[in-house]
Amino acid sequence: MMSDDDRADVVELAKRRGFFFAAAEAYGGAAGFYTFGPEGAALKRNVEGAWRDRFALKEDNEEIAAPTIMPEPVFEASGHLDTFDDMLVECAECGESHRADHLVEGATSLEDAEALDPEEVADLIAEHDLVCPNCGAALAGQPVEDFNLMFETSIGPGSGQPGYLRPETAQGIFVEFPRLKEYARGKLPFGVTQIGPAYRNEISPRRGLIRVRELTQAELEQFIDPEADEPPLERVEDVELRLYAVPEQQEEAPASDGYRTVTVGEAVEEDLLSSPWIAYYLGVAQEWYERIGLDTEQLRFRQHLPGERAHYASDCWDAEAKIESAGGDWIEIAGISSRGDYDLSKHATGSGESFTVFKQYDEPKSVRKPTVDPDMATLGPEFGGAAAAVADALADLAERDPDAFEADEVTVTADGEEYTVDTDLANFEVVEETEAGEHITPHVIEPSFGVDRTVYALIDHGLERDEMGDEARDFLSFAPEMAPTDVAVFPLVSNHEPLLDTADDVVSTLRAAGFDATRDDSGSIGRRYRRQDEVGTPFCVTVDRDGLEDDPTSVTLRDRDTGAQARLPVGDLVGQLEALHEGDTGFETVLTQYETVEPIESE
Amino acid sequence: MMSDDDRADVVELAKRRGFFFAAAEAYGGAAGFYTFGPEGAALKRNVEGAWRDRFALKEDNEEIAAPTIMPEPVFEASGHLDTFDDMLVECAECGESHRADHLVEGATSLEDAEALDPEEVADLIAEHDLVCPNCGAALAGQPVEDFNLMFETSIGPGSGQPGYLRPETAQGIFVEFPRLKEYARGKLPFGVTQIGPAYRNEISPRRGLIRVRELTQAELEQFIDPEADEPPLERVEDVELRLYAVPEQQEEAPASDGYRTVTVGEAVEEDLLSSPWIAYYLGVAQEWYERIGLDTEQLRFRQHLPGERAHYASDCWDAEAKIESAGGDWIEIAGISSRGDYDLSKHATGSGESFTVFKQYDEPKSVRKPTVDPDMATLGPEFGGAAAAVADALADLAERDPDAFEADEVTVTADGEEYTVDTDLANFEVVEETEAGEHITPHVIEPSFGVDRTVYALIDHGLERDEMGDEARDFLSFAPEMAPTDVAVFPLVSNHEPLLDTADDVVSTLRAAGFDATRDDSGSIGRRYRRQDEVGTPFCVTVDRDGLEDDPTSVTLRDRDTGAQARLPVGDLVGQLEALHEGDTGFETVLTQYETVEPIESE
Repeated sequence: MMSDDDRADVVELAKRRGFFFAAAEAYGGAAGFYTFGPEGAALKRNVEGAWRDRFALKEDNEEIAAPTIMPEPVFEASGHLDTFDDMLVECAECGESHRADHLVEGATSLEDAEALDPEEVADLIAEHDLVCPNCGAALAGQPVEDFNLMFETSIGPGSGQPGYLRPETAQGIFVEFPRLKEYARGKLPFGVTQIGPAYRNEISPRRGLIRVRELTQAELEQFIDPEADEPPLERVEDVELRLYAVPEQQEEAPASDGYRTVTVGEAVEEDLLSSPWIAYYLGVAQEWYERIGLDTEQLRFRQHLPGERAHYASDCWDAEAKIESAGGDWIEIAGISSRGDYDLSKHATGSGESFTVFKQYDEPKSVRKPTVDPDMATLGPEFGGAAAAVADALADLAERDPDAFEADEVTVTADGEEYTVDTDLANFEVVEETEAGEHITPHVIEPSFGVDRTVYALIDHGLERDEMGDEARDFLSFAPEMAPTDVAVFPLVSNHEPLLDTADDVVSTLRAAGFDATRDDSGSIGRRYRRQDEVGTPFCVTVDRDGLEDDPTSVTLRDRDTGAQARLPVGDLVGQLEALHEGDTGFETVLTQYETVEPIESE
Repeated sequence: MMSDDDRADVVELAKRRGFFFAAAEAYGGAAGFYTFGPEGAALKRNVEGAWRDRFALKEDNEEIAAPTIMPEPVFEASGHLDTFDDMLVECAECGESHRADHLVEGATSLEDAEALDPEEVADLIAEHDLVCPNCGAALAGQPVEDFNLMFETSIGPGSGQPGYLRPETAQGIFVEFPRLKEYARGKLPFGVTQIGPAYRNEISPRRGLIRVRELTQAELEQFIDPEADEPPLERVEDVELRLYAVPEQQEEAPASDGYRTVTVGEAVEEDLLSSPWIAYYLGVAQEWYERIGLDTEQLRFRQHLPGERAHYASDCWDAEAKIESAGGDWIEIAGISSRGDYDLSKHATGSGESFTVFKQYDEPKSVRKPTVDPDMATLGPEFGGAAAAVADALADLAERDPDAFEADEVTVTADGEEYTVDTDLANFEVVEETEAGEHITPHVIEPSFGVDRTVYALIDHGLERDEMGDEARDFLSFAPEMAPTDVAVFPLVSNHEPLLDTADDVVSTLRAAGFDATRDDSGSIGRRYRRQDEVGTPFCVTVDRDGLEDDPTSVTLRDRDTGAQARLPVGDLVGQLEALHEGDTGFETVLTQYETVEPIESE
């Protein structure tokens, strides 16, 4: 583990070694935009690949790729145009913009100022004499306004058509539901995933990858029939979770580590979770975080407080990682929420299309339907032009209040006027009909993951410092599946042809076997090991003269975390690395099988 | 092969089977935006993966991921703000927008109206009495204007900072050159790739994936020292290319198929290509297209005409695919261009930063440098406040015109005034200096691939129609590496537990071996084969009762293209599929090794 001070090095290491850095810095950049360099882009791809494997392939869900620009009506319907806002206050003195709710939270004991009205927040700013963090000028009296976080653009020439960069990948799935359900042959449950960019025009982006304006999300929309579909809970019932539920957060002096450790099965039994689907995906998420090598000692699931939850969400749990280089804060890295039928209903209303599936009953149901068959030959002459409207009103009444037809006369309103009709003329009757099923709007369970923050957490949790060869060294203890490079190959010296040729052969063999292998000829062997340690390469192969003299040729294999080295025949390399990569074996097993080599860390 | 009429089915098939479809159709959509459904997203990922393997991993290049939104100064420097325009004419009657140059090209023999001025195009519209293709109103007299194709947005709250969605992924690489060269340890040549979204606010998007407003590019920026670096041409010298060079296009009646077939080596020898790097990447591209299963009979490389080339490009070749469902047109699917030092020089000027690398000489060079050391004790009193400017001007003159110091007096201009100085006071001298090297601006070779168009071409080229079991069938003849699904598994009937269990086992085994396997239980076996044929699944496995009675258990394996089937032990499945997938074996070999089964195509 590293101290807090050392953790400040995370951003510096990320920049120096090519994980991530502020974009377009040659031009002064733009706050909230980061470029992933070669190592970071590889790490990010590995995170995305592992997520795809777990949440799409293994769950038999389908992945789509929708555009990032979407037309305005989509966001009118989804509610983002009206409500996807943050509270903005501008300093009259220096012009700097601030999140008004964050300023209030920083100066008071309030934890959820976002839930207040802008006017209330403005009052609190005045009451507590808050000042601009940039220039120190008083902010009292400055208006607090809702600022919409969507990036707007214009589609097509001329005045064009307003469009927005999607604030979440989810909307690209919801709007295509009518087609996606056909690919699923109309059968629930089914899930659709998407991995891609999403955009939030943050008022004050933070440094690092915590609050950025362009991010990558990995989202699954699991469409279910809430009355019938059950998740395969047995697969994860023994997975242990750290749950930080609402009651623990509402204690008088809530401990930020006040979570309870329970298994998924126990959580369901004790009714800690509102839905078995939430329970299932909490278990899947926990397993996935373990697989990608997040430090699960620094992971918890926090339930949203009632005021914090979107009004349509019946329950939501955030996965939070404790990140030392972000001041030791618990940072949201995923959210798993139960969104009900909110999204599909909104899009059905907004588009006028059907966002339902037909749910067949186990057996056809016989239903009693009140009907009328008005005697138009009599009604026509009696009511003239209003007769058709009167007939419709009678049909409505029959459905709404069949008992009304027990009286001799019924009174209905048509075109704003009241009409009284002899009940006999309505020919009221209750008929038996057979229905095969009904159209239902599916509910949505949404596991939504922030890829950038996951990458950041892996680097933060992975960065370790120790001593090796009497020198301090930093290394990233990535899981082999996540490491940007699987294996590095070094010829010990760079002026000996046979060494270079053998190194070439080794690299080719490793690449053909599917490994991402890199080669490095320059600098002392110690420097080369350090470079790979700093980008988290789990294993290094060195080709030396001793090995060339062996029959068969041997090379050394070095373990990143311990620095331990073994000498093994070059033909064994692929098999051993595959076992190490899959986690089937540990390096200690390699050491028992082969000759141990005294580490050369600084030749 | 299919007829032209059948080809119209490509878009319908793409929609029905989930390859791609107009996005957000429930809301009427927005022209030029497509969603890739499950099959299309998988095909697109496979294309991207194969490109990454060939152009990044195998070439030892590095991949980065930069933001899609970039601040305005980037595009001021790159030239996009000024010149990334198309010519727009609006119909006064119906308000529809049109590409003015395309209207003119359609009505005249002009092939490159884009190279004309807007005024000339407006004149041609009037001269040829062109009318609005939408409503038929005359367009004569309507202004033709340059319309910038970048999507604009605003970064941050308030009036914000103008930003643009990148029109090409390349700029995200160029602006980071100062850092990227550090990761490459300052050594040329090196290459950096990026795969991701790019945006073009097209005036009139076309249906299908040919001209869209949001696209995916796969680009490589190969940074080279044009005087020293050579590509490994020997790797591709025997690759055959169809080159449609400028002279063939400029013949009096150019044949659109008037390409010449030559090897890369011959093309270099005959000086058909301006740079060995262009030759190298043409060869790599040709090999890559063969690998992903593009019909190379429908592929050519067309050289840009001098008027068509960007002014900075010294040479550019487009890969073009003939696409029947796009009217049999040759459609650009990639461009390989020699961009000189244009991009890096522009960004150096625009940002004021260094976009060079230090090139070490083989041995240090001794250079003679004219210098001055002005006698400020005399110049100060003589020229007062202008003395320092005069001294600077003398130094400039020494560098520019050392011979001037042979006279008794020299005259320089400083702050707009002329000053005459005694040559003695300048202390002019030519000194010997040793230089280890020089700072050079690398040149750029850019292979740039359109992923969406490649996907479209693969579907168009892949769609075949034949008869099977007395029924017409459509199938997509994708290469196994590209197919969205590797293998489908069917239990012959869905009401026999042992069949279902065995099918489960087979799917698990195939997935564990890394195959993307799907399972389908519903409908007749013939319908299930057709469904897989239509999404291009190369192999289907059927579990039947006969097989369960065999010891060991056997299953049938069916070949998509021929419909031929073999019965083989379930334990042989992974090995055979691996060999078929890698292209190490063909299905005819499988048929010789195992019992052939009479196809059941319509049980």
